[in-house]
Amino acid sequence: MEQQMPNWLKKRAELTPERTALIFENKSYTFLQLYQSASKAAGQLAFAGISSGEVAAVLLPNHSDSVMILYALQMMGVRTVILNNRLTAKELAWQLEDSDAAALISEDSFEEKLSQIKKESTIKILPKEKIFQFPEADFQLLEEYHLDEVTTVMYTSGTTGSPKGVLQTYGNHWWSAAASALNIGLQENDKWLCAVPIFHISGYSILMRSLVYGMCVVLYRNFNERIVLEGIEQHRVTIMSAVSTMLLRLTDALGETRLPEFFRCLLLGGGPAPLSLLETCKQKGIPVYQTYGMTETSSQFATLAPEYSLEKLGSAGKALFPNQIKIISELGIEVPAQSEGEIIVKGPNVTPGYLHREDETKEKIKKGWLHTGDLGYLDKDGFLYVLDRRTDLIISGGENIYPAEIEGVLLGHKAVEDAGVIGVADPEWGHVPLAFVVRKAGAAIDESSLISYCTDSLAKYKVPKGIVFSESLPRNASKKLLRRKLRDWAAGQGETHEPSKD
Amino acid sequence: MEQQMPNWLKKRAELTPERTALIFENKSYTFLQLYQSASKAAGQLAFAGISSGEVAAVLLPNHSDSVMILYALQMMGVRTVILNNRLTAKELAWQLEDSDAAALISEDSFEEKLSQIKKESTIKILPKEKIFQFPEADFQLLEEYHLDEVTTVMYTSGTTGSPKGVLQTYGNHWWSAAASALNIGLQENDKWLCAVPIFHISGYSILMRSLVYGMCVVLYRNFNERIVLEGIEQHRVTIMSAVSTMLLRLTDALGETRLPEFFRCLLLGGGPAPLSLLETCKQKGIPVYQTYGMTETSSQFATLAPEYSLEKLGSAGKALFPNQIKIISELGIEVPAQSEGEIIVKGPNVTPGYLHREDETKEKIKKGWLHTGDLGYLDKDGFLYVLDRRTDLIISGGENIYPAEIEGVLLGHKAVEDAGVIGVADPEWGHVPLAFVVRKAGAAIDESSLISYCTDSLAKYKVPKGIVFSESLPRNASKKLLRRKLRDWAAGQGETHEPSKD
Repeated sequence: MEQQMPNWLKKRAELTPERTALIFENKSYTFLQLYQSASKAAGQLAFAGISSGEVAAVLLPNHSDSVMILYALQMMGVRTVILNNRLTAKELAWQLEDSDAAALISEDSFEEKLSQIKKESTIKILPKEKIFQFPEADFQLLEEYHLDEVTTVMYTSGTTGSPKGVLQTYGNHWWSAAASALNIGLQENDKWLCAVPIFHISGYSILMRSLVYGMCVVLYRNFNERIVLEGIEQHRVTIMSAVSTMLLRLTDALGETRLPEFFRCLLLGGGPAPLSLLETCKQKGIPVYQTYGMTETSSQFATLAPEYSLEKLGSAGKALFPNQIKIISELGIEVPAQSEGEIIVKGPNVTPGYLHREDETKEKIKKGWLHTGDLGYLDKDGFLYVLDRRTDLIISGGENIYPAEIEGVLLGHKAVEDAGVIGVADPEWGHVPLAFVVRKAGAAIDESSLISYCTDSLAKYKVPKGIVFSESLPRNASKKLLRRKLRDWAAGQGETHEPSKD
Repeated sequence: MEQQMPNWLKKRAELTPERTALIFENKSYTFLQLYQSASKAAGQLAFAGISSGEVAAVLLPNHSDSVMILYALQMMGVRTVILNNRLTAKELAWQLEDSDAAALISEDSFEEKLSQIKKESTIKILPKEKIFQFPEADFQLLEEYHLDEVTTVMYTSGTTGSPKGVLQTYGNHWWSAAASALNIGLQENDKWLCAVPIFHISGYSILMRSLVYGMCVVLYRNFNERIVLEGIEQHRVTIMSAVSTMLLRLTDALGETRLPEFFRCLLLGGGPAPLSLLETCKQKGIPVYQTYGMTETSSQFATLAPEYSLEKLGSAGKALFPNQIKIISELGIEVPAQSEGEIIVKGPNVTPGYLHREDETKEKIKKGWLHTGDLGYLDKDGFLYVLDRRTDLIISGGENIYPAEIEGVLLGHKAVEDAGVIGVADPEWGHVPLAFVVRKAGAAIDESSLISYCTDSLAKYKVPKGIVFSESLPRNASKKLLRRKLRDWAAGQGETHEPSKD
């Protein structure tokens, strides 16, 4: 039976109107104020021609205005494609085209990217500065959210190269929020600090929890360890989401001091933290909850409680209450504890599929189980260990980078015969991409010009930090690239096919 | 899209195996122990011939064994008719017949009722003392709960007289638990005291919250204010469910002392508390959350936060986060604030309907809205005030009594021409039933013999506390009994048809 719930923000404006919903740059908004502002924005968006049932894309930074716009779109029933700010105009134009978005809502700070997008696409661009000048037109406010309806789309790349739009329903977000509350509890004084991007599921899910719990979000434009530490004290923050890079900078900035007692949970995404960092956190009294999750699971899916962080080092914990995890062999059969295999997941927070990608949806989601492509195992106590994210995923400062996407760009260069990309460890970002390239016979191109070429098509964080030229790349009989071999090469363990740095 | 979740108790045994799940008579059980005991009971029930997809009835008191049996049945996917212990054998036999239950699981302490039921019914009776001697047979443990499937049935009477089985799905219980957590929060140290019957939704819903939250239930056979006060201190209870009668006895027993600081929520069901009681609670620091709910909404549906308890005296607060309330006129049209009408409710915790009562289901649930039959209004701030429960419902010590049911029994007596029942205020129970009876011409029967006659067919709490004989009863043109007039009579405001106490 399909379920409905009352419109979340409207309900919050009725239930807890005076509670603080959002703090941004020292300005506070109650739920009632947010509801009024978002309703006004909805009227202005309606005037701009955006209406229920349509698809709109947003290119917006972490800002209170962005929150109003995202809430307005949600309340109007406009399916919202939430774009990653770090992408190039070329990448953005591709996603706008792929998603059939009717308009792009953005702001003047993205002027340069927007003018480039205009060259690549015919999409109607609506900067917020213009929208907020419009009069308010009538619009249809959803009194109820149908939990099976898609409300957001976030693009994620895959092993096959081109990004796919992950569909996220109202229900996905609701269940994700409920599952998290059942895991870490819910206290009246909770405030969740968001210095991760709201265009990512890591940040957007904090907004959804705010609505579902009636909880305050303390929002930052970006992550600055000193400002965040001040904010934790000033606003009495109890919970925060972070990736390892951020946590490292935070512990460094803390020096000899500790976080205040009321701070009760640091939710850590983007891959396991190193032992040294966890030990530092223990000393400083930072309760770290390591998590496993992805855009397709609408944020965290499994979490490791802090009391296990050292004993179960490297584990992402157990699947949250509504969630299930299995490890399967290549034959699709569940394997016993301690045995490696593909991680498959099931739960009401799992995406119904990929936008306009019926075949890939069917291939990845079978009988409700999402085949993540990640490798891992469950230990005898049922704790999950992720060995390799989606075989070759590179996580760099919390951003996902798919080697196939970079390889595709490199192969587009006329001088490149073959290309392979892997992640190599980096003290600041966790991992960064490194490319192996085979030049075409007679072609002459050097590292810096190939890197500069990549910069045109790829977001900065995806651009290879180095290029290693080689005579050939390791491929198996069916010509599949063996990235594991490339990693051996990078670690200096190569035997044959010795690569040469040009 | 129909949702599935992992088996709740099994999941709890995996996620939080060592956490205390239940305390009963100073014996504690962890979630792992409960799972093991319930699994064993499931094997024994399977040996007794009970299997998935069947209907079983239970007649069980508040006891740890009862919890194991209820969890076993839930994990087996056996639809469980949970019978009210206070009913007579006659009433129970009727519900067993109506529900098509294949077996009745009970215990020797109900020997007398069970032997009477044997006379009225051919149902297989399985006392727990026998079940626990059985070997364990193989049984099908549900790995997943399908949220749309019915797991429990609880009988409730209606204005039409004969009781109806309210269907409750796994999803109903899940949403009810989630809604309550979003309302009052969820803390690691939470312990919920249950001295209300687990055969009622008020008690059963505490068990469901325990599974969903991973929270400890402190269970009592029945309510004794001194023992409960000791238990709150000893087990560091944070939350408790009660009705006004219980709360009154609790505050009396407290005397000059206060409840401990860690006690954070008293959830009050069964109608509004009087001002004097609320003032006493405020003085003693008891945070009272007044609620509105019913078997059909799988427990609380609206709740009044303690900070409003005096300002909004008599209100049941606002609908919980996933829930909606409207007030409609007799024409079915939503009425404005402050206007009286029928209370209709919608939410994922609302029953899909009544067992074997398709017509009544259609009549009461329209487009997802349950027509409660209760009268009330919403004030301008959206707070619900319940004026009259299901027109004539009598709530006595937390038990629902339907006048029509008692009238039916009275009319079955050969000397009774007409009968009408109302509730009158009672210092101990809130309300008790009072009957108005018209004797047949020439018939001679007195109050005590008619009361004694009622005792054979009605649970003790339903038997009229007094009988007033009258020459006729106030009925309207279409012969509908005007119970409001009877209430005027009882209040001594009658003008015509002056009744005479025999």
